[in-house]
Amino acid sequence: MGTWALKGHICQSRDPQQIEITENGYLIVENGLSKGVFPTLPEQYRGLPVADFGDRLIIPGMTDLHVHAPQFSFRGLGMDMELLDWLNTYAFPEEAKYRDLEYANRAYGMFAQRLKRSVTTRAVIFGTIHLPATELLMRIMDRTGLKTYVGKVNMDRNSPDYLREFDAEKSLRDTEEWIIRNQCRFDNTKPILTPRFVPSCSDALMEGLGKLREKYALPVQSHLSENLGEVRWVKELCPYAAFYGDAYDRWGLFGGAGACVMAHCVHSTDEELERMRANGVYVAHSPESNMNLASGVAPVRKYLDLGLHVGLATDLAAGSHESLLRAMMHAIQASKLRWRLLDDTLKPLTVDEVFYLATLGGGSFFGKVGCFRPGYELDAVILDDQDLPHPQRLDVRARLERCVYLADDRNVYAKFVAGERIL
Amino acid sequence: MGTWALKGHICQSRDPQQIEITENGYLIVENGLSKGVFPTLPEQYRGLPVADFGDRLIIPGMTDLHVHAPQFSFRGLGMDMELLDWLNTYAFPEEAKYRDLEYANRAYGMFAQRLKRSVTTRAVIFGTIHLPATELLMRIMDRTGLKTYVGKVNMDRNSPDYLREFDAEKSLRDTEEWIIRNQCRFDNTKPILTPRFVPSCSDALMEGLGKLREKYALPVQSHLSENLGEVRWVKELCPYAAFYGDAYDRWGLFGGAGACVMAHCVHSTDEELERMRANGVYVAHSPESNMNLASGVAPVRKYLDLGLHVGLATDLAAGSHESLLRAMMHAIQASKLRWRLLDDTLKPLTVDEVFYLATLGGGSFFGKVGCFRPGYELDAVILDDQDLPHPQRLDVRARLERCVYLADDRNVYAKFVAGERIL
Repeated sequence: MGTWALKGHICQSRDPQQIEITENGYLIVENGLSKGVFPTLPEQYRGLPVADFGDRLIIPGMTDLHVHAPQFSFRGLGMDMELLDWLNTYAFPEEAKYRDLEYANRAYGMFAQRLKRSVTTRAVIFGTIHLPATELLMRIMDRTGLKTYVGKVNMDRNSPDYLREFDAEKSLRDTEEWIIRNQCRFDNTKPILTPRFVPSCSDALMEGLGKLREKYALPVQSHLSENLGEVRWVKELCPYAAFYGDAYDRWGLFGGAGACVMAHCVHSTDEELERMRANGVYVAHSPESNMNLASGVAPVRKYLDLGLHVGLATDLAAGSHESLLRAMMHAIQASKLRWRLLDDTLKPLTVDEVFYLATLGGGSFFGKVGCFRPGYELDAVILDDQDLPHPQRLDVRARLERCVYLADDRNVYAKFVAGERIL
Repeated sequence: MGTWALKGHICQSRDPQQIEITENGYLIVENGLSKGVFPTLPEQYRGLPVADFGDRLIIPGMTDLHVHAPQFSFRGLGMDMELLDWLNTYAFPEEAKYRDLEYANRAYGMFAQRLKRSVTTRAVIFGTIHLPATELLMRIMDRTGLKTYVGKVNMDRNSPDYLREFDAEKSLRDTEEWIIRNQCRFDNTKPILTPRFVPSCSDALMEGLGKLREKYALPVQSHLSENLGEVRWVKELCPYAAFYGDAYDRWGLFGGAGACVMAHCVHSTDEELERMRANGVYVAHSPESNMNLASGVAPVRKYLDLGLHVGLATDLAAGSHESLLRAMMHAIQASKLRWRLLDDTLKPLTVDEVFYLATLGGGSFFGKVGCFRPGYELDAVILDDQDLPHPQRLDVRARLERCVYLADDRNVYAKFVAGERIL
């Protein structure tokens, strides 16, 4: 891969407070890692090959911390219900179709194609309970060049017959077989343990998954405190748990020893948040999903103040769109309504903050990912905003802000993941 | 113009409750007016020319009840403030630039181009205080073929020196000159009286505008009860007014004898709403704007239940996007958060309801506009959703719903306004 440079208007976050901008800057890349950003080309790099993107913006690739690949097919549809009814009416029947590999191939192909053309460079992905379809999804995702975690979903209770694993033992056997076969199979795609959520996983299944997590040193993804009805249900199902997240933690599936990301966290209690902080659990903030299913709005500013790891997520198909730019827009808008309608002690999120969430906030789930500081993997998106006309010259900061609201896949001019150009 | 037919999957509203769909239907047009929708071509129309749009969707053109043309240029920027600060920091300085006709020509040209390519066929538009630039805007809008009302803005107090009319008399003289010159000048564009909002118009100005309204039988557009600080300010400024809207009504600028549309109505009291109902005042619901400036969420369901006229608006540039499809999405999402966070007695808006708002709800401000029933003007948008892939066949209803969340200007295949194809 060697050493080379990107040139353009470079934007990145160091922290949630402020986007750092280097106009007409140079980003040096060595063996897929950043050597840093420089306002002019340093002496020792003279003569390097330079990919000159001119007046375009260079931003870190974005990380989608929570997205359901099989639900892509019904994005934009059926958002007239809250979570539990929505699952039974729309999500579960659709997911059941992925037992058919031909369908899975067609549908996952569409999903992968869209994600590749988006601003996303990394994603943490739910598959379905089906082993063959999930392996296929891994193969398809691997080919995109995006870096992804993909999970075979576990569900052995409170799920329809057509989408339930026979029992915990069978679910665990399948899962272990899947792990062994796929742990080192792909360059870009790795397995992640994926209990759907507490209501659909028996204690025996959770216990077994906890052991697999330890045995294979796997990360974990699941859902947490999304909807009030769901939270009440978990309380009934797990009387032993002090709070929802405790029902994961009991089985070692809530961070601590391993990486863990939990989607939503809209209604997390202070006790739950404290455990998340202590265990290093990531919050996958999914603002559009939480609007569409009327779940509420997670108090993201509070989570940032507490020092939690927070990233952004599209949560297809409870979120309608694969674009993390749109997720940034929704995160700001949701926080404004939360501030106006519910709690004026937490100020709305800023553009700088949601940019941080979409890049470094979520990127760190993948290691040194999400900015261009030395040593970070070179994930970069080149944005071309020429087709968003403006009667006057805008500065780079304004152009970036505008892209949050107005850019789409047409504006993604090029994309690099871990140093490789994939688009 | 003669008699001809459109063929395709025809979707329209009769009322807010349900979208009516006629698959592979015929829409007969005679002299620019609909003769109705038919599942098969009626005998008497055999041999008519048919514009066959195949598997595409045919929907009524949409009406944007409130949009600021001069603000288009900073869409997607500067939404980190509430209304009054936002006006002083972003909107007023930008609007002041339209004293420069060259700038106005460039900026309004961009605005008109985008609007033409959108799903909008009718719009009620704010210009600026500048007479030449507003005439230019009218000429540019007229050429698009869209049907529009355009207003020269009146502001003679509480406005910065660089964007204020010298006094009420001068403002009224300019306005009357503008009316006389432009009332019958354009085929597609008509003048509308446009006091910016109560805080920026003296009583003398309001009184004079009321007389002009009567003398020239003009419609009126303005802002109402958008922001809590604004509502308090109006109370101070107009101690004689029983409520914000009463400060317009006192001068005959609040419906009754003439057509009137008021943007926002987020914080309208029951008394204000009752006057609006009695006077037939239209509500221009601007959900994204009300999120972006943290104004709140208008209780639209209540307004529909009360029998108020309600339509949708993008409110550029407090709303970031010119697409009424996106305004529909935001209307649903805002209503869900209002329901979850503030008041669970008002159920969220449905896709059917927001489709009604965007078509017939706002369209009726222009007369018989917004559906395909016999006698209605033929405003139609042909949506091509081929580039929104789905692994299975979707029915027309699902395809339309999906377009609300996913379609953009690429999906606007053709557009008719009052029977003329403009795209």
